[in-house]
Amino acid sequence: MCSLAKQLRCALKIDQHLPLVDISAAAHRYSMYKVGPVLCCSHGIGMPSCSVLLHELIKLVRYANCVDPIFLRLGTCGGLGVPPGSVVISKQVFDGYLRNEYEMPILGECVRRPANFNPIVFNELLKCKERDDRFGICLGNTMSTNCFYEGQARIDGAVCCYSLEQKMCFLNKIHCMGIKNIEMEALQMAAITYHCGIKAGAICVTLLNRLNGDQIDITKEQLDDFQQRPLTVAIRYIKRVLNISNCADE
Amino acid sequence: MCSLAKQLRCALKIDQHLPLVDISAAAHRYSMYKVGPVLCCSHGIGMPSCSVLLHELIKLVRYANCVDPIFLRLGTCGGLGVPPGSVVISKQVFDGYLRNEYEMPILGECVRRPANFNPIVFNELLKCKERDDRFGICLGNTMSTNCFYEGQARIDGAVCCYSLEQKMCFLNKIHCMGIKNIEMEALQMAAITYHCGIKAGAICVTLLNRLNGDQIDITKEQLDDFQQRPLTVAIRYIKRVLNISNCADE
Repeated sequence: MCSLAKQLRCALKIDQHLPLVDISAAAHRYSMYKVGPVLCCSHGIGMPSCSVLLHELIKLVRYANCVDPIFLRLGTCGGLGVPPGSVVISKQVFDGYLRNEYEMPILGECVRRPANFNPIVFNELLKCKERDDRFGICLGNTMSTNCFYEGQARIDGAVCCYSLEQKMCFLNKIHCMGIKNIEMEALQMAAITYHCGIKAGAICVTLLNRLNGDQIDITKEQLDDFQQRPLTVAIRYIKRVLNISNCADE
Repeated sequence: MCSLAKQLRCALKIDQHLPLVDISAAAHRYSMYKVGPVLCCSHGIGMPSCSVLLHELIKLVRYANCVDPIFLRLGTCGGLGVPPGSVVISKQVFDGYLRNEYEMPILGECVRRPANFNPIVFNELLKCKERDDRFGICLGNTMSTNCFYEGQARIDGAVCCYSLEQKMCFLNKIHCMGIKNIEMEALQMAAITYHCGIKAGAICVTLLNRLNGDQIDITKEQLDDFQQRPLTVAIRYIKRVLNISNCADE
């Protein structure tokens, strides 16, 4: 998170001597850095962890009277039918039952909220492709699950009650629904930001093509390169929003 | 996690010069220390985060040919009808719909697994009370949720669609079901360990009594003291299991 904040500080041409402090270090839960008008936060693994952070960030931006804040999730994911290293911008998000909504019990009763990202944000994110990029950027639907193994049809977890054929049948089915990636946070993020009228988007890089297997077979160097890509796209987007040009002196 | 490992190393009378190394640091996800026969791991916030770790730990103990491993979760929680600072040992775990099972979609289909902790473990944990303790230890049912705010009937989240009266009605209802604490991980842990035939238990300290409000109003010193209690109980339990006596030289 600190390395991400440093890159952002550089890209936004903010005084390089400005100290970067983890604002939320004392609570031992998340990391948070303020870089000019951008707040960078870690959200942990999974929707519950992300949910705690989002409830608190939404309160924070309200109390701080932020005008029209934009929330972006950056992360890694499994891809479906796209080459490893592709950046997928999420459009609609589906749960493990293939419903385009986030279900949660509130006071024991079922509440379902639509889980769609903001078209203005995802269309602008798509424009952040540059001619020399060594990776593709595409718009796609996303499936978010609460389980990395059984929930994502993996066969290498501690528990697996289905065959390879059943797994492939399911993955092919969701691929036909336009689902291009599977991860563990976007559904809840899309739902709460949509519910609160906050613009949001998700930018994830695929580490493998799940239609070809469950194992990530890239090198450490490739992994580092892939993980940089969502940040590259996010920085371009932030610069467009803040109207910061790409100058020769960068 | 390192501080916990140090206390464990001391309690188990393991060479104090043995270095403590975070085995999983390189992956930037969890912390993990091996202290003699005990593996201490952080699990993050929420069931999805805990699920990734448990799938991988269950595989690890199998590959390592561990005989009859015991999994314990240590954490904090909201209490119901018990004084702040009480240690609750979980028995049955309920989801937000008040079902004593963990529901998850697998290949798009609903799968439900019983979520009960092992009676041998929770009964032994209850015996770890000592006469001079400044805190109570009790057995209770637990509710686990995917949302800290709306899912736990809090009224101080970014979103709240119910009244104080509706909240209190729900909390009183679940208190009558024998639910003594609310947290975010035990349900999935009880379900996967039960499914895999692994003995497990959960030891959580209550930071507040939710029947009295949503705000934690203890001092930093009290918080540190409270957070130590699950570890105190776990260390006593581990020493009983490993047959390590409390000697005068401790």
